[in-house]
Amino acid sequence: MRATLLYQAGDVRVEDVADPKIQQPTDAVVRIVLGSVCGSDLWPYKSQPYTGNPRHMGHEFLGVVEETGPEVTGIKPGDLAVVPFTYADNTCQYCRRGLQTSCPHGGPWGVGGVDGGQGQAARVPYADGTLVKLPVAEDSELLPDLLTLSDVLCTGYHAARTAGVQPGETVTVIGDGAVGLSAVIASGLLGAGRIILMGGNPRRTALGREFGATDVVAERGQDGIAAVRNLTGGTGTDRVLECVGLKDALVQGTGAVRDGGVISRVGAPQYPEAPLGFGEFLRNITLTGGVAPARAYMEELMPHILNGDIRPGRVFDRTVDLEDIAEGYRLMNDREALKVLVRP
Amino acid sequence: MRATLLYQAGDVRVEDVADPKIQQPTDAVVRIVLGSVCGSDLWPYKSQPYTGNPRHMGHEFLGVVEETGPEVTGIKPGDLAVVPFTYADNTCQYCRRGLQTSCPHGGPWGVGGVDGGQGQAARVPYADGTLVKLPVAEDSELLPDLLTLSDVLCTGYHAARTAGVQPGETVTVIGDGAVGLSAVIASGLLGAGRIILMGGNPRRTALGREFGATDVVAERGQDGIAAVRNLTGGTGTDRVLECVGLKDALVQGTGAVRDGGVISRVGAPQYPEAPLGFGEFLRNITLTGGVAPARAYMEELMPHILNGDIRPGRVFDRTVDLEDIAEGYRLMNDREALKVLVRP
Repeated sequence: MRATLLYQAGDVRVEDVADPKIQQPTDAVVRIVLGSVCGSDLWPYKSQPYTGNPRHMGHEFLGVVEETGPEVTGIKPGDLAVVPFTYADNTCQYCRRGLQTSCPHGGPWGVGGVDGGQGQAARVPYADGTLVKLPVAEDSELLPDLLTLSDVLCTGYHAARTAGVQPGETVTVIGDGAVGLSAVIASGLLGAGRIILMGGNPRRTALGREFGATDVVAERGQDGIAAVRNLTGGTGTDRVLECVGLKDALVQGTGAVRDGGVISRVGAPQYPEAPLGFGEFLRNITLTGGVAPARAYMEELMPHILNGDIRPGRVFDRTVDLEDIAEGYRLMNDREALKVLVRP
Repeated sequence: MRATLLYQAGDVRVEDVADPKIQQPTDAVVRIVLGSVCGSDLWPYKSQPYTGNPRHMGHEFLGVVEETGPEVTGIKPGDLAVVPFTYADNTCQYCRRGLQTSCPHGGPWGVGGVDGGQGQAARVPYADGTLVKLPVAEDSELLPDLLTLSDVLCTGYHAARTAGVQPGETVTVIGDGAVGLSAVIASGLLGAGRIILMGGNPRRTALGREFGATDVVAERGQDGIAAVRNLTGGTGTDRVLECVGLKDALVQGTGAVRDGGVISRVGAPQYPEAPLGFGEFLRNITLTGGVAPARAYMEELMPHILNGDIRPGRVFDRTVDLEDIAEGYRLMNDREALKVLVRP
C-alpha cells in the first residue's frame, strides 16, 4: 500500500510499504477513508534530522474495517470507524479512569511496527478498545466533522474538561490553530459564558467567533495579557486553555489567568520546564492538562456532531490526495492552510 | 516593645521597636501570647544580605486583643485570637472564594509598616477579617495546637485539599518538616487510606507515623521514587503533597505521582521554573497548590483540635523566650529542633 514517510525536515514522501495484516488476535485492518495532517506532525516536519529509517506519519484517520482478528468482538468487517490518536486496550486501570494515553498496551501510531494514519490502510491494535464505530455511511457529509474526534476536537475538549470550565465562567483560549478553535467549541459545550480567543490570524479568529468566541485578542505577550485583563476587570480569567505548546504561550497563560485559576495545556510542550515559580505559587495557579485521551471523549462528543450542534470539521480548509500530501504539509507549515484533509 | 529583627543571614536580634497603635479604624492591637519560627523564616535567615533596614520577622502568632479601632465589630478587647500568616479583609471577591492570600487589602506580616509576629505585640490590619477568636483561656494546654492554625497546619491542609485527596486514596507526602507532618494529619482528615511519608529524619518520621503515616520512605531521588513505586504496584500515588520547596523535591514528586495524578506544592519554591516538560505532559500530571490561604481553613480545622482528634502542636519540640529567639533560629536551621515555640 501507499503511505506517508518523513525522511527529514521538509522531506515528506508517499511510498510503497507493506500491506497491513492481522498480527495479533485483537487486531483489525482498516482501509482508510479519510485522514488529516495534525499540527503536531509539523514539529518533526520542521526539525527532524535525516534518517535512513523514515518515520511513518499520521495519527488522525477513519476508515472501513476490512478484517478482524479472532478475539475482536465489538466491531466487524464493513463497519466505518474512527480511531483516537493513540491506540489502547480500553480495559486497563488507566483506560477505565479515562486516561487511555497511559494504557500500558497502548501507544502512538507509526511507531514500533504500527502503521501511521496517513496511508491507504492500517493495522489497528486492540481494535475493540481503539475503534469507535460511526453510525453514518462512508459518503456522509459529516465525515470531516467526525474525523475531528480522532484528535483535534477531543484535544480541545480535554483542555476545557481538565481546566474545569463551569457554566457561566470566562475562559481564555490561547491559540487560533485547529486545537484552539476546538477548545472554543469545547468551552461552549461546557457552558462557558464568555470565551476570549487569543490569536493573530483574522481568518482563523473569525471562524473562532463562529464557533462561539465572544472576544478576540490579537495582541501577544504583555500586550495580550493587558488586553485580557482589560476585558475582565483587571483580574484575568478563571480558566486558560493553552493550545500552542510554546513557552511564550504558557507565560501568556500565567498572565491571563486569575489568581487561584487553572491553566490547562494541550499543545505539546516545546520546552523542558514550565514558567511556574514563586510568583505563580503566591497566586495559587494550577497547571493541568496534557496529551488528550481522545478515546475517553469520543462517545460523549459524537452526538453533538450527529445532531448538528457543532461543526468542528470546519477547521479543514484544504483537501489533498494522499499522493499530494507533501503539499498539504507545506500548506500548513506555511500557514496557508489551517488544517488539511487527506483522501487516500 | 521588643521585637525580632533580621539584619542579615544568621543575624537575628531582639530590639526595641515602636509600640503598635491603632492606625486605621479597622485595626486591632494584639498582645502576643505565643509565637513560633516557621521553616520559611529560615530562607532569609540563610541568605539575606546585610541591610541597615532590618526585616521584621514572624508571621505565626496568637494573642489577646488589647484595643480595637472604631470599625471593628467582630472581636473585642480581652478576646484571645489567632492570626493567619497573611492578613486579609475577608470580604473581597478573592476572600469569598477562599483565596485570602490574594486579597488586594491583605499582605504579609512584617512588611510595609506592619509588625512581625515574633514580638511582644502587633497591630493587626483588618482585624474583623484577620483575627479568629479562640474559645479557650490564655493558659490552655491547647495553645500550641491552636497556634498551628496560623500557618503550618493550614498549609499542610491546603496541600491535601488542592491535591483533591479523596477517602481511601494513597497519598505521598514529600518532606518530614512541620509542614510535611501537618500534611500527613491533613491527609488523614480527608480520609486517605494510605499515607507514604518521604523523609530521612527518623525522629520526625516517627512522629509522622503517630500522625497517621502508614509508610515511610527514607530514600531520596531516584531511590525514593523507586521505593514509592514499589509500594504502589509500580504506578505511584494519585496525590503527592510537596512540602519542601526545592526543585529536587518536585522532581521526586513527578516520579512518585501516578499518571493522571496531582502534585500539590506548598513549600515556597526555591526555583524559577517547574520541571514539567514533555514527559509530564504525556503523563497528564497536574501541578497545583501554592501559598496557603490559612484564613480559609481555620474555622474548619479548629474543632478537630478542640475535640482532641488531632494534636498538630506536637511539631513543636522546643520553646524559647523571645529574648533568646536567635537560639531558636539556630536550633531549627541546624535541624536540632523541628519547630520552635516563642514566648514573648
